[in-house]
Amino acid sequence: MQRIPPKSGAAFLIKAGQYLKVTDPEGEQVSDMVAFAAADTGEFLSSGRSLDYASRLYLTTGDRLYSNRSREMFDIVADEVGRHDFTLTPCSKDTFRIIYGEESPSGGCQENLERVLKPWGISPDRIPIAFNCFMNVAVDGDSGEIRVLPPLSRPGNSIVFRARMDMIVGLTSCSAGQSNNFRYKPIDYDVLPDFAGLPHAASGARQATFADGLPDQ
Amino acid sequence: MQRIPPKSGAAFLIKAGQYLKVTDPEGEQVSDMVAFAAADTGEFLSSGRSLDYASRLYLTTGDRLYSNRSREMFDIVADEVGRHDFTLTPCSKDTFRIIYGEESPSGGCQENLERVLKPWGISPDRIPIAFNCFMNVAVDGDSGEIRVLPPLSRPGNSIVFRARMDMIVGLTSCSAGQSNNFRYKPIDYDVLPDFAGLPHAASGARQATFADGLPDQ
Repeated sequence: MQRIPPKSGAAFLIKAGQYLKVTDPEGEQVSDMVAFAAADTGEFLSSGRSLDYASRLYLTTGDRLYSNRSREMFDIVADEVGRHDFTLTPCSKDTFRIIYGEESPSGGCQENLERVLKPWGISPDRIPIAFNCFMNVAVDGDSGEIRVLPPLSRPGNSIVFRARMDMIVGLTSCSAGQSNNFRYKPIDYDVLPDFAGLPHAASGARQATFADGLPDQ
Repeated sequence: MQRIPPKSGAAFLIKAGQYLKVTDPEGEQVSDMVAFAAADTGEFLSSGRSLDYASRLYLTTGDRLYSNRSREMFDIVADEVGRHDFTLTPCSKDTFRIIYGEESPSGGCQENLERVLKPWGISPDRIPIAFNCFMNVAVDGDSGEIRVLPPLSRPGNSIVFRARMDMIVGLTSCSAGQSNNFRYKPIDYDVLPDFAGLPHAASGARQATFADGLPDQ
């Protein structure tokens, strides 16, 4: 198990067939995830493609995440929380300045991802909309208003992804107070060769298996 | 006035201070818009930043569109339709294959944007989520389900943007049947040095002026 300290980030390789388990050890903590194909980092995890193909804003167990080239990057194979965001870019100095009116903001997930992805040759401009694990964004279907609410994750809850290609993954412990209920906590992750299920599965967590084709929906 | 024939695209320069008017001449036709800073095309129109800063999925008159570097790209200064999408990537061969099950799909907005942006040195991987003018995407706030419905635009309706930097704009007449109520029509556009208001303004269209700071919301 690897721990990402509060308000920081990590980048690592994952191989096709391996599993990435992202755990919120203390609860109510967001983790922004981005991914790039190891073979060609011009290919990256795409919110716009994934949401279009799922026809849903909220992705969970049984859903598939696609690249900008419409290739399969991840399957979500287990999810104890069931609410994540895939519409917003990582928080940044500019986020804190523009939305929250901070005069001298420190950096956020954007700057943390820039730092950890730089050794992989990925420039700041290429950090896309993240899959924001555990981020709870409520949408009003009439007005389109979006509100960032405290995450639904409780201590120890996790989400598990199966990698479908070799990738460089960037992952953070989010620095935005609004998305963490104003407590800044760590995030844990594991890259696993196999995955037998979540310990809490019996208590109602959703798990899924995927055939070689598209998930049944 | 320039006309974009059905199922095609155009790319052009717009200068800071000029206005871009996008018109749906026949009604119920979507137009995907992307933009890149002319000075450095690594800077592009960002859905994730714009939605975050507006705290709303549906943008209209009075809203501002931001780049991935959190700089202001466009103000929406008039809008006769009031419903556009900013969450989905341009339709493509892969869209038609994955969502609609077509075996030998022809290209869509993605391929049309690739073609028109190539002379500007912008590669296919760098075409982001578009501001999809007139695209009517309904969201269920509970399930997150998204449904592509016929546009609300009637013949002659338009949306007007004020450019806040010099940009290369890519614009299409969308090729996806679902977003056009299965009629494939042209899109008209004008790049204007000034803008006095929309002819239909008296009948309820929303118009706004912006101060130098953020729009009043």
